[in-house]
Amino acid sequence: MEKDIFCKIINGEIPCHKLYEDNDVLAFLDISQVTKGHALVISKKHYENFLTIPQEEMHKVMDVAQRIGQVDIKYLGAKGVNILSNCYEAAGQTVMHFHVHVIPRYEGNEGFILEMKQNDGELNLPAIAKAIKKEL
Amino acid sequence: MEKDIFCKIINGEIPCHKLYEDNDVLAFLDISQVTKGHALVISKKHYENFLTIPQEEMHKVMDVAQRIGQVDIKYLGAKGVNILSNCYEAAGQTVMHFHVHVIPRYEGNEGFILEMKQNDGELNLPAIAKAIKKEL
Repeated sequence: MEKDIFCKIINGEIPCHKLYEDNDVLAFLDISQVTKGHALVISKKHYENFLTIPQEEMHKVMDVAQRIGQVDIKYLGAKGVNILSNCYEAAGQTVMHFHVHVIPRYEGNEGFILEMKQNDGELNLPAIAKAIKKEL
Repeated sequence: MEKDIFCKIINGEIPCHKLYEDNDVLAFLDISQVTKGHALVISKKHYENFLTIPQEEMHKVMDVAQRIGQVDIKYLGAKGVNILSNCYEAAGQTVMHFHVHVIPRYEGNEGFILEMKQNDGELNLPAIAKAIKKEL
């Protein structure tokens, strides 16, 4: 199986602007820099995404994401931070290796556009809740 | 201090379509249903957001978010899932009580629009990386 780009970064085959590294987690600047300081935090071990990584390893990644977000606010001048993990292509995942985006937000126009529009359709909320609840 | 809307939901003062509840975490359907099954997972104890909640409590919330996302894929027909937490108003946070959005994605037009555009400006990536790294 061909290695994905994040496995290559972990192995040092592709360079990155590293922010943090330990035995389990690597953090570096996303090359697209959707906003200034846009970071990716990844598990060193290969898992497809947030839904398939074991909890303990996911926690380690989230802890580093939290710390980077705190630094964005305290030291980088960010006014907000989005924490985002896309799972599967239908959700915009492009690299199939678990990663969390830490996106500092500033004032004015930016490359990160997020719209959440209320559903106009007629959804049966009790039925949807029941369908999820019984499988949890 | 006036209670926020999520504290009122936790206390049962405002109803919700509940998905899951334990001593620390509550999950329910977001009333806006940006997509079918759009869920919110919150800490019962009040923290402002992902950046200010203690790690252990954040982990509990993320674990429930993961399980709901897994159910969305397995049982709700979702093709993808976005995991999102907005911190502060500049990042789109509207309720100042830590919450994670679990947004199932399907095919076709949806209420969740996410664009991440590559920054065209000239950013000094080594300098940005250095500024973050030294504070971690």
